[in-house]
Amino acid sequence: MTITITAFERSPDGGKGLARDTRVRWALEEAGRPYAVRLVSFAAMAQPAHLAQHPFGQIPTYQDGDLVLFETGAIVFHIAERHGGLLPDDADARARAIAWMFAALSTIEPPILDLTIARIVEADRPWALERLPLVRDRIRRRLDQLSERLGDADWLDGGFSAGDLLMVSVLLRLRMSGMLEEFPRLAAYVARGEARPAYRRAFAAQLAINAPPTG
Amino acid sequence: MTITITAFERSPDGGKGLARDTRVRWALEEAGRPYAVRLVSFAAMAQPAHLAQHPFGQIPTYQDGDLVLFETGAIVFHIAERHGGLLPDDADARARAIAWMFAALSTIEPPILDLTIARIVEADRPWALERLPLVRDRIRRRLDQLSERLGDADWLDGGFSAGDLLMVSVLLRLRMSGMLEEFPRLAAYVARGEARPAYRRAFAAQLAINAPPTG
Repeated sequence: MTITITAFERSPDGGKGLARDTRVRWALEEAGRPYAVRLVSFAAMAQPAHLAQHPFGQIPTYQDGDLVLFETGAIVFHIAERHGGLLPDDADARARAIAWMFAALSTIEPPILDLTIARIVEADRPWALERLPLVRDRIRRRLDQLSERLGDADWLDGGFSAGDLLMVSVLLRLRMSGMLEEFPRLAAYVARGEARPAYRRAFAAQLAINAPPTG
Repeated sequence: MTITITAFERSPDGGKGLARDTRVRWALEEAGRPYAVRLVSFAAMAQPAHLAQHPFGQIPTYQDGDLVLFETGAIVFHIAERHGGLLPDDADARARAIAWMFAALSTIEPPILDLTIARIVEADRPWALERLPLVRDRIRRRLDQLSERLGDADWLDGGFSAGDLLMVSVLLRLRMSGMLEEFPRLAAYVARGEARPAYRRAFAAQLAINAPPTG
């Protein structure tokens, strides 16, 4: 059975690896699973055929035989549950790694996405500049707590897990903001994630689509 | 072994059931598991003892023997994985129910929380009134897609699951906004969730703390 995921035909970030298919590619690379990619245009994402796979008209989706999944967190968890390398064997450690998966997507990412709303979606609104420091301070509060918990450890709870995969992916969204550098432990943590061979393969695969070599 | 969760000593919502301990109480009630509650004050939530249990200084936490968990989604999943009634047995259906858990917390709740930020946190800012329609429209877009997917079904994917438990809980945050009534299928869906005996027990338990009977 071939695993097929969907990705943007042309990612809005031009290949910086921030589209969510990179997270799923990374998980599949950590698990050592081959996969196929089906590219979808923005027009196609709003069509019934895609909405049948993803009710919110986004990417990525994941298909393996009869199973069709949406939501990056659920896809990464599904991969982690079925293959080695992404969740610890010990039951308590596994539950804590899953807690970090939810923390990345429900506690850390929302204020970071709010920065995208403030800087891009509402960029032409009269309040755009004045509101930005509030949004950034809400992110800083979470980063401060996260940095405190990470301390001098390499990963959030013992060895690298799907929780780290999602947390690093979420923090990567802050690269352009300069905020990561305010938290050296988190900057080093993200760098450790990016240095993993599986991440590098995932990044290269999405880059090849979004910024194909010219000439 | 006794399961112990934490809840607000005094919930900011005065007992409307919107604090996240209600979600965990509901899951425990569906699973038929007894539990103890430890109440924490806002002052205590910022102290090292609580931060050791919850790195972001929030409630609920979940303790069962040596295992300490944070993040509502992870706690509900942990309960669902260990007890019946919250996840289907069929592997594919189970994966899809987990997708709805993540969808509730990562796709539907963030724009709804943005409404709280707009209406309460930034209520005294000069842009507060003008920005509100934008925030509400971002919520409507998701509700529209969710209502479309739900259609005339009782629950999101087959029988009631932890995905519905979290989705109903997230949508309940919209009660005061009047927006739920714009989507009759979703309003009926939320009412079905609230009518479940397990939800009613969970709601009553948090109400007894936050609005104790007088006289």
